[in-house]
Amino acid sequence: MAFVGAGPGDPELLTLRAMRLIGAAEVLLHDQLVPQEILDLASESATLVPVGKKGFGPSMKQDAINALIIGHARGGARVVRLKSGDPGVFGRLDEETEALDAAGIPYHVTPGLTAATAAAASLGVSMTRRGRNSDLRLLTGHDVRGFAEQDWRTLARPGAVAAIYMGKRAARFLQGRLMMHGADPMTPVTVVENASRADERQLPATLATLAATLEAAQLDGPAVLLLGLAPQAARAAAIARQEVS
Amino acid sequence: MAFVGAGPGDPELLTLRAMRLIGAAEVLLHDQLVPQEILDLASESATLVPVGKKGFGPSMKQDAINALIIGHARGGARVVRLKSGDPGVFGRLDEETEALDAAGIPYHVTPGLTAATAAAASLGVSMTRRGRNSDLRLLTGHDVRGFAEQDWRTLARPGAVAAIYMGKRAARFLQGRLMMHGADPMTPVTVVENASRADERQLPATLATLAATLEAAQLDGPAVLLLGLAPQAARAAAIARQEVS
Repeated sequence: MAFVGAGPGDPELLTLRAMRLIGAAEVLLHDQLVPQEILDLASESATLVPVGKKGFGPSMKQDAINALIIGHARGGARVVRLKSGDPGVFGRLDEETEALDAAGIPYHVTPGLTAATAAAASLGVSMTRRGRNSDLRLLTGHDVRGFAEQDWRTLARPGAVAAIYMGKRAARFLQGRLMMHGADPMTPVTVVENASRADERQLPATLATLAATLEAAQLDGPAVLLLGLAPQAARAAAIARQEVS
Repeated sequence: MAFVGAGPGDPELLTLRAMRLIGAAEVLLHDQLVPQEILDLASESATLVPVGKKGFGPSMKQDAINALIIGHARGGARVVRLKSGDPGVFGRLDEETEALDAAGIPYHVTPGLTAATAAAASLGVSMTRRGRNSDLRLLTGHDVRGFAEQDWRTLARPGAVAAIYMGKRAARFLQGRLMMHGADPMTPVTVVENASRADERQLPATLATLAATLEAAQLDGPAVLLLGLAPQAARAAAIARQEVS
C-alpha cells in the first residue's frame, strides 16, 4: 500500500515515482485538491475515490478514510492514497499510518513537493540565505494560536523566514502577534495562492498591509504566506505593471 | 536560464519538469552530489560541467560558477544549473540569482524535493502531527552556532521536530545545547545518510546517544538528522533485526 505525494498542483511537479505508482494503482483514494490532470494519469480500469478535505469545506471523516484504505488493501488491490503536497507536511499522514500499523498492513511513503518550496520557486527566491536566516520554518495558520511566546519572538526577528500554510484566516492574528513581539511592520510577506498552478497568484505585501491585502484579494484557492520573502526584483516589477494596467 | 532541483538522489524522485529541462539543456552546470543516473538524462550533445560542493571537499568558487552561468547564457545556450535537493533550501540559490539579476539575465526556478522530507518518507513517518508539533524547522548544522538562545529553548521542547542538514559535525554541539535547555535525553533523533539513494542508511538514536551513534557509524555521505522523529514501528524492528544478524 502506497502513500504518494501529488505535489503542489502543477502536474509537471509530480515525481517520476508518483507518476508510476498512480499509473499502477487499482484503487486511488485522493484528496479533493489533487487536480484532474494528475488523476487522469491513473489507469482507465482504476477505481478513483475522492476523500479528504478541500479547504474548509466538508470532508470524509478520518475513520472512514482509514476503513476504505484498509478494506481495499485487505482485498488485495494495489492501493494508492494520493495526498496533495507532501504527505508528511501538514498532510495528517500519521493518522492513516497508525490505522495501517494497527491493522498490520505494510506501506511505504513517496514524498511530494510541498507548497512552500513551490511558492518560493515561483517568486524566484531562496528560502534560506547566508547571513539572513540559518533556519526555515513551516507552520500552519490553524495552529498558530497554540504557539508559545518564544516562537513569536523568534519569528519576529529580522531575517526570519517562515511559510505559513492555511494562513488566510490567521493573517490578522499573525500580524498582531508578530508586531507585538517587535517585528518590523515593513517585513515582506508574500501570499501565493494556488502555488505552481496555472491560476497561481502572487500578492506581495508587508506585515503592515497583509490583512488588508488578503481581504481585498478574496482568495478562493489554498494559499501559503511567505513571511520574510519578497518576489525577486524583476518579478516584483512585472506584478506592479499588471496592477497598473 | 533555469535553476533546477535534482531532489535528494533517487532518480525517480526527480520531477517531470526537471527531467524535461535536463533533457533539453545545452549546458548543464551541476553540483557534484547529483548522481550519475540523473546526469545521464542529459542530451548526448550537452556540455556537462561539474561545479559546486561535495560535502566538505574542495569546490569551485561561487564567483567562478556565476561567471560560467552568465557566460553560457549570454552565448545563447540553453543553460540549466542543476542543484541537489531544492535550490531554495540551503542551496545558496540567492548567490547565483543575484549575479544573474546584476547581469540582466532572466531565469526561472524549478523546485526539487529536499532531503528532509525524503528522509522522513523513508522512515514512514509524518514530520507534523496534530497535538505534537504545529511547526517544523529546517536548519543547518553549519549555522547552529549562531542560534539565539530562544531557538534552543523552542527546539528543546517536547514534541519539537526539526531536520538538521549537514549536521554530522554539529551533533555533539546540538546535543549539549538542547540538553542544557531542558530537552529530554530520550528524545528520538534519527540520522538518515544518503536519503532516498540505494545506499541509504537509517540510524535511530536518542539525543543522549546521538554523538556516539554518529562516531560509530563513520558516515561518508550527506546526512540529515531528524530531531523528534523515530522510524515507524515496523521499520524500527527491521533495523534492529539487521543489527542483530
